[in-house]
Amino acid sequence: MALLVVAAVAFDSIKTPHGEAENILGGAATYFSVTASWFAPVRVVAVVGDDFGEEQLRVFQDRGIDTAGLVRAPGKTFRWSGEYSGDMNEARTLETHLNVFQQFSPTLPDSYLDTEFVFLGNIDPVLQLHVRRQLPKARLAALDSMNYWIKGKPEELSQALAEVDILVINETEARMISGVSNLKKAAEVIRKMGPRTLVIKRGEHGAMLFSEGGIFSAPAFPLDQVHDPTGAGDSFAGGFMGHLAKAGELSDAQLRRAVIYGSVMASFAVEEFGLRRLLRLTPQEIEARYRDFKKLTHFDA
Amino acid sequence: MALLVVAAVAFDSIKTPHGEAENILGGAATYFSVTASWFAPVRVVAVVGDDFGEEQLRVFQDRGIDTAGLVRAPGKTFRWSGEYSGDMNEARTLETHLNVFQQFSPTLPDSYLDTEFVFLGNIDPVLQLHVRRQLPKARLAALDSMNYWIKGKPEELSQALAEVDILVINETEARMISGVSNLKKAAEVIRKMGPRTLVIKRGEHGAMLFSEGGIFSAPAFPLDQVHDPTGAGDSFAGGFMGHLAKAGELSDAQLRRAVIYGSVMASFAVEEFGLRRLLRLTPQEIEARYRDFKKLTHFDA
Repeated sequence: MALLVVAAVAFDSIKTPHGEAENILGGAATYFSVTASWFAPVRVVAVVGDDFGEEQLRVFQDRGIDTAGLVRAPGKTFRWSGEYSGDMNEARTLETHLNVFQQFSPTLPDSYLDTEFVFLGNIDPVLQLHVRRQLPKARLAALDSMNYWIKGKPEELSQALAEVDILVINETEARMISGVSNLKKAAEVIRKMGPRTLVIKRGEHGAMLFSEGGIFSAPAFPLDQVHDPTGAGDSFAGGFMGHLAKAGELSDAQLRRAVIYGSVMASFAVEEFGLRRLLRLTPQEIEARYRDFKKLTHFDA
Repeated sequence: MALLVVAAVAFDSIKTPHGEAENILGGAATYFSVTASWFAPVRVVAVVGDDFGEEQLRVFQDRGIDTAGLVRAPGKTFRWSGEYSGDMNEARTLETHLNVFQQFSPTLPDSYLDTEFVFLGNIDPVLQLHVRRQLPKARLAALDSMNYWIKGKPEELSQALAEVDILVINETEARMISGVSNLKKAAEVIRKMGPRTLVIKRGEHGAMLFSEGGIFSAPAFPLDQVHDPTGAGDSFAGGFMGHLAKAGELSDAQLRRAVIYGSVMASFAVEEFGLRRLLRLTPQEIEARYRDFKKLTHFDA
């Protein structure tokens, strides 16, 4: 099944204790698309500027990603620069330039209108709803958000939440949206706001799934070294949604497998700078790490 | 198999956002003994003062715990007072009075000398080694420690570590002992210091096991409310060691099950103040929560 993502394409400048990179291709739409492309056909909706050239376009095309919804606007592409230090759990944002992203209001190409699986990445909830409503055939819509929108546009976010099936956010954001510190209670509050399924990303502490099937808790994959955490959350979402679109089925068993595939892809994402590791994966490596997760968590009943 | 624990018996005064309690029976030896007593015969080694009466002794005896190694000394029992706020991940210690614990140097009763499973709780590493060496028949010795000893007596701690099989500590302590921030690498360093098996307690984020069988990662049990985190780590250790003593076998499969039993017991410990929940458990409740852990973590291969 085709999987549509709307989010930002960006040029990132990143500094971590293990190195740095300037103006490399990034953004949630990019990490999500590349990751999900290992599982299902991906359709991307985003805006890029004059500085987005053939080289960048090829990254999407080489992964078979449908770029009919990639709009080119005059000006520069969204730019972000950030720095990680210490345990690298959180980036310190140095600069954000929205650039062409400021006037972004996507109208989907006709070829996208039959999409059944949708991921509304972390953008203005007004735009998320605008995209959601252009896709009446969507069987599954998931949404990501962040503190900026939770604080700045709570009503618009509530409206968007009311029209999605799954919310994928991090721990701090789950507490912020619900106003509740205990995660189990926070999940109950959020699941009454619209999304019947909630995925909470906890970085190095793994991920939790709250759904009709109860609670599922998965660890993060223990790595010798995290080189660059940029895009880990978006890669998680890409693996999670990618697996669901591939399975075409929304049972509890598939949701749980999707959380593991999300964790698998996030673990690859951070092993090298930018998209590097995600681009040179093999299906065999993905399946091997899935099996490693099984070994990591297995115990006898 | 009998399981011996040496650690502190204390009177605790605790304040959490959900209530407070004054001078209630606590201490690592107490939490460990009571918890482990649900799995195996327990022998306790500790010192108490004049203020430790029949009422406190009965707590141990009602759980069938062997108190032949509970020494009574003139003076007051160890006292600790602490406060938890916010996410309750760490206690703020208000007062510590070592009292009779200052002159503690345990000589084990003859009836203890055939002990095969030993837990050297968080006390001076010199005492840990002193106890360890009185038990030549021990098949399995585990050790806990804390920042105070890691910083204050690193050489003595190294000596103790060289003579144990398992180290059970929390995340911060693992980083401190190894001098390495990455947990996987920290585990490699620690496993070269003596203990071939390392268990890292991560509070609300679960626990990890590093051993010959590879890495095992278990989540914490999601609870609606944590009433009092006091003794959670010691209850984890009690469930972990209790299961191993009961199983009498040290395979990877049993170590993994032990981590889950540790997590089960820690989850019960925090549900009510002090020892309350741990004292009125049933074997059925313990097994039911073990099965709940299976549901919480299961996904299809």
